Amino acid sequence: MAVSEDDIIASYFAPLAGPGALGLRDDAACLTPPPDCDLVLTADAIVAGVHFFPDDPPESIARKALRVNVSDLAAKGADPLGFLLTFAIDEHVSADWIARFARALGEDAAQFNCPLLGGDTVRTPGPLMFSVTALGAVPTGRMAARTGARPGDYLYVSGFIGDAALGLHARMGDRPWVGRLTDTSRAYLIDRYLHPQPRLALAHALRDHASGAMDVSDGLAGDLAKMMRASGAGARVDLARVPLSDAVRAAVRMESALLETALTGGDDYEILASVPPERAVAFEHAARAVGVHTARIGVVTEDAASGAVFLDANGAPRTFARGSYSHF
Amino acid sequence: MAVSEDDIIASYFAPLAGPGALGLRDDAACLTPPPDCDLVLTADAIVAGVHFFPDDPPESIARKALRVNVSDLAAKGADPLGFLLTFAIDEHVSADWIARFARALGEDAAQFNCPLLGGDTVRTPGPLMFSVTALGAVPTGRMAARTGARPGDYLYVSGFIGDAALGLHARMGDRPWVGRLTDTSRAYLIDRYLHPQPRLALAHALRDHASGAMDVSDGLAGDLAKMMRASGAGARVDLARVPLSDAVRAAVRMESALLETALTGGDDYEILASVPPERAVAFEHAARAVGVHTARIGVVTEDAASGAVFLDANGAPRTFARGSYSHF
Repeated sequence: MAVSEDDIIASYFAPLAGPGALGLRDDAACLTPPPDCDLVLTADAIVAGVHFFPDDPPESIARKALRVNVSDLAAKGADPLGFLLTFAIDEHVSADWIARFARALGEDAAQFNCPLLGGDTVRTPGPLMFSVTALGAVPTGRMAARTGARPGDYLYVSGFIGDAALGLHARMGDRPWVGRLTDTSRAYLIDRYLHPQPRLALAHALRDHASGAMDVSDGLAGDLAKMMRASGAGARVDLARVPLSDAVRAAVRMESALLETALTGGDDYEILASVPPERAVAFEHAARAVGVHTARIGVVTEDAASGAVFLDANGAPRTFARGSYSHF
Repeated sequence: MAVSEDDIIASYFAPLAGPGALGLRDDAACLTPPPDCDLVLTADAIVAGVHFFPDDPPESIARKALRVNVSDLAAKGADPLGFLLTFAIDEHVSADWIARFARALGEDAAQFNCPLLGGDTVRTPGPLMFSVTALGAVPTGRMAARTGARPGDYLYVSGFIGDAALGLHARMGDRPWVGRLTDTSRAYLIDRYLHPQPRLALAHALRDHASGAMDVSDGLAGDLAKMMRASGAGARVDLARVPLSDAVRAAVRMESALLETALTGGDDYEILASVPPERAVAFEHAARAVGVHTARIGVVTEDAASGAVFLDANGAPRTFARGSYSHF
């Protein structure tokens, strides 16, 4: 490719730069932090063939790279301040591909009020890789931590669980049930896999009312277990209360084992939160006010030894062969 | 490799974590920014086969990954606050390799007072890649910018120029002159290539006295030209004043063309600064006080059209076939 690093930056990424980015012409960005705030910092990378398909549209790859990080900021109750991008491409990537990637990234950055602050563009002989570091701010001392769940707290999740895990199969077309879905359901699930929807609108409700929170990226079952371990607590979840989309329900009716896929598969990018009972009404009200659907799925218990227990309609515990999803 | 992502983080990286990193057990780090400061943010990645050799010692790779970023903070006059690391490894990397990488990274983090705040560990089918985002702080409004050089300012560089560019050849052993160096010179140059020395001690002198600064990573000639373009100015440099180590002088005596390699090759990680004449004594004094050697190599001019001009002992301009080094 004839495009130089300086050309890529000037042509495609400089237009995305926030005020602190100094037009991407300096060694570093310069940002005055908001007063009386803590900084929230997160980094997540995506690798072709591991976290996305090399032939996914560049727009989808760009959105996933940024959104998986914005999702972490949202889960911590933070307002985005901006992000840095390390952009590792091989020699086959065309200027048109980069232009499409950058345009979609810019649209997302504007949508999430999370401007590009800087980064690095490197050449790799290996798979495409995009590493994002995102910064956000919360009022001092108010970050929603993974460690904050307390026995008696209610457990909530946003959106629907399992769409992306089934969407991955829909994207690959590698299972018979995929062909029996309606076109609409298949398209919905693939979109949910390709385009995480960070629940940024929920950030203020979380920092105002939640005792603890995290984003669900490695499957609800495993991530809930992680949050309970970090909090020194247990959890009891009513399986019937876990919110499933019509598309997932349809798939589970065809193959009941897909319920486990939905609960243990990755890439939901929904929010899991613990909320003290006395804050539950206020939390639900705040979530509704910003248009984010939340479902109360269970309760935090003192039984740390049992971890996260999922109960079926008969009150019997359901165990999963695979605890959580790992891209690693 | 049987080591899981969680094991890697808990065993090798959690011990490096700073107070804001929450033991690397949360989705994000939480950091209270120092009062009355701007944040300085920089990201640089290194890729095996591009920025380092796959068989370089893991200690050297770790140090390079962090130091190229600390060098940017130093050039901006910033005190480090911490860093996030994206660690992309293939299945052949052993637990011992990771342990050695992490130990060296921890030593450097302690030396530079730049704790690990977070990051991501991903599996790649491609080359090893390490992407660091570093954060620093400067008193509000005091970041040393690349755009600040003004006609009449003196130009300084720290340390020696060209060691790493010649060290790369010494590392590869691909040139006849390498064999004619003394063992000491060869070892010195290789060490300078493998182990950048960020001039962090110079940070306060820069923010107190320099009008502009950047770190020299893509060759003095090209980086000086970049800084002058960013500042809308020109530069005149006395070639004889460019500081060269005894090892580089010895190599240039064998092959005079190596002077151009030294001035246009990459990986110096020295500081280039413009200092108003009335601050020059104070700047030199401050640099000496922290033990960083600086050399006054020239002056900023109004002749932006001519860019960075290097003059030989007879006052004749010297041009270089290759403007600057690019890993890209």
